[in-house]
Amino acid sequence: MTQPPPARIGNAITDVDTPALLVDLDAFERNLQRMQQLADTAGVRLRPHAKTHKSVDVALAQISLGAVGQCCQKVSEAEVLVHGGVGDVLVSNQIVGPRKLERLARLARTATIGVCVDDAANIADLSAAATRIGVGLDVYLEIDVGMGRCGVAPDSGAVTLCRLIGDAPGLRFAGIQAYHGKAQHIRGAGERAGAIRHAAGAVQRMLDLLAAADIACPTVTGAGTGTAPFEAESGLWTELQAGSYAFMDADYARNLGADGAPDDRFEHSLFLLTTIMSTARAGTAICDVGLKSTSFESGLPLVADQPGVTYAGPSDEHGTLRLDGGTRLGLGRKIRLIPGHCDPTINLHDWYVGYRGEVVERIWPVSARGAFF
Amino acid sequence: MTQPPPARIGNAITDVDTPALLVDLDAFERNLQRMQQLADTAGVRLRPHAKTHKSVDVALAQISLGAVGQCCQKVSEAEVLVHGGVGDVLVSNQIVGPRKLERLARLARTATIGVCVDDAANIADLSAAATRIGVGLDVYLEIDVGMGRCGVAPDSGAVTLCRLIGDAPGLRFAGIQAYHGKAQHIRGAGERAGAIRHAAGAVQRMLDLLAAADIACPTVTGAGTGTAPFEAESGLWTELQAGSYAFMDADYARNLGADGAPDDRFEHSLFLLTTIMSTARAGTAICDVGLKSTSFESGLPLVADQPGVTYAGPSDEHGTLRLDGGTRLGLGRKIRLIPGHCDPTINLHDWYVGYRGEVVERIWPVSARGAFF
Repeated sequence: MTQPPPARIGNAITDVDTPALLVDLDAFERNLQRMQQLADTAGVRLRPHAKTHKSVDVALAQISLGAVGQCCQKVSEAEVLVHGGVGDVLVSNQIVGPRKLERLARLARTATIGVCVDDAANIADLSAAATRIGVGLDVYLEIDVGMGRCGVAPDSGAVTLCRLIGDAPGLRFAGIQAYHGKAQHIRGAGERAGAIRHAAGAVQRMLDLLAAADIACPTVTGAGTGTAPFEAESGLWTELQAGSYAFMDADYARNLGADGAPDDRFEHSLFLLTTIMSTARAGTAICDVGLKSTSFESGLPLVADQPGVTYAGPSDEHGTLRLDGGTRLGLGRKIRLIPGHCDPTINLHDWYVGYRGEVVERIWPVSARGAFF
Repeated sequence: MTQPPPARIGNAITDVDTPALLVDLDAFERNLQRMQQLADTAGVRLRPHAKTHKSVDVALAQISLGAVGQCCQKVSEAEVLVHGGVGDVLVSNQIVGPRKLERLARLARTATIGVCVDDAANIADLSAAATRIGVGLDVYLEIDVGMGRCGVAPDSGAVTLCRLIGDAPGLRFAGIQAYHGKAQHIRGAGERAGAIRHAAGAVQRMLDLLAAADIACPTVTGAGTGTAPFEAESGLWTELQAGSYAFMDADYARNLGADGAPDDRFEHSLFLLTTIMSTARAGTAICDVGLKSTSFESGLPLVADQPGVTYAGPSDEHGTLRLDGGTRLGLGRKIRLIPGHCDPTINLHDWYVGYRGEVVERIWPVSARGAFF
């Protein structure tokens, strides 16, 4: 069900078929370097999130700059990463069900594999899978630091779970998963920092409880693109899981920095190339990017490089562009859009088209597209 | 980038890996028969829309019951259908750009291929591609009957375009594309019928203009699941393009019938199977269906068969279920969801798992998944 790539290496951007996922390689590489530098400066490890990029090529580029490995959300993503040569993968999520647990354990034969838990029965199931396959798994207790989704409260029950992990055959207590997803898109830098201070309180409570119980906690892992500087400088987190920084999107671009101006630490490197396919109605143009090639739950795509043009709304295969008075976009014209939300947009595509200048330089498969098992 | 199927034929539903796209084959087959019967009774042709199902297997099932072929939105979808054995495909959309036009023309070597236009330059480009490849294409003029997207007004300019088509080497004027997408989800049956009466006025104007110009109009094609009975009985449309009726979704289920009760002509046959993966927080359960396995722009999924459970919101890989007082869903429990909008949801999956009773009977590839070129 994989489509052929929309371009060949050496093509001009204008010859790329649409809709296509473009990567500005210069901006992308600067983003990778900046986040690695942020982690290095703070003395913490960077474990970028492959749920964003779903690409072995991107993972290996991040690791070549100093990332310790990858994290991901699904066993099938971990399979793609390990098969592609990533030697250290943390599934930053709960894995439930015998088929998935066996596949996860099998991966630990060739790579360092971590996984998160928030349930005693799940710990027992993980232990059974690991011993059956004859491997060791790194297990992290997920605590809820404000996300309100998975994870337990940092209390005595959490300590009991950590002890259960440490005592379970085939499992190693590797530390704490502490990710505050809701904080990532709080617009004001002060409020965003405040949310992470609150999360840090929960992490500190958990660390104090573990210390009192004489349980070593090797790692505290978490953070995303919106909050990474705060976790990095907290003195508590030892590992950052950011993902979107490699590409950025329209939603992250609405975050503000400490000075109240848009936070521009990372650049847009990901674009959707789209073709104008109908100009029959005055004041609008119809393009070929709709619900099946970009996601909309975090807002509409932005139009890059075309003042006077606004993406006004999608249907399944179409996008309606509103043209300010006088603006013209001819039939067949190709323009770039900035996706509203990079993760689910990338998951709709089979290929990245990496370009430098105006020439296609890389064609990368979205190797874990559809890997939601 | 295609994932392995989540089940094998003969598996119990409870053994299907998740997230998975389930098809209740009994309900699906009844839906197919009902829409074919609606078309047969009205004496119009049924050309179901493959943009919904993206499946050769579903297309061939529809054709075996009497459908004249398929329509779709993209050349790459048409390629999949023709390659799979569908002999008559209408691309109910504008196709722009030399690469796509050449691929479209090549398909006409082995199948009857139609396409829509709303622009004189595009007609010239289509003609050039058809003559270069040495084929004939059926070309439909798209008129705007209320959708406000592609298509021209039914006026003298439209007649000129029809004449241009008829005069262009390699092209045959096949008729009018008249689809009112916005009417499909108008909730009240009377208001929905009114929107199609308005569309019928535009179609009648176009037919009158063509008759006055002595241009034969072989086909008027359009309609969707929400309005098909109205177009079928109009005496104007000769072909129906409905797609969602095969599966239905939560959005269509909010449409009302003539009696003011929910319109239940077609049944939900499409479900998402999901696993409970975290129960750490009281009053909620976390399942494994989020933005990467179902679409949300037409509303949240509904929970089937589980009173007291509501899908309250998604993140990328998770769904939060709200549990009414006393309701319990254990870790590892699998439940069925009804997608909010079937078309973009199906496009996220590689496989349909067709079941009858509680046993897997068919594994169908979503053969045109990601076919947006």
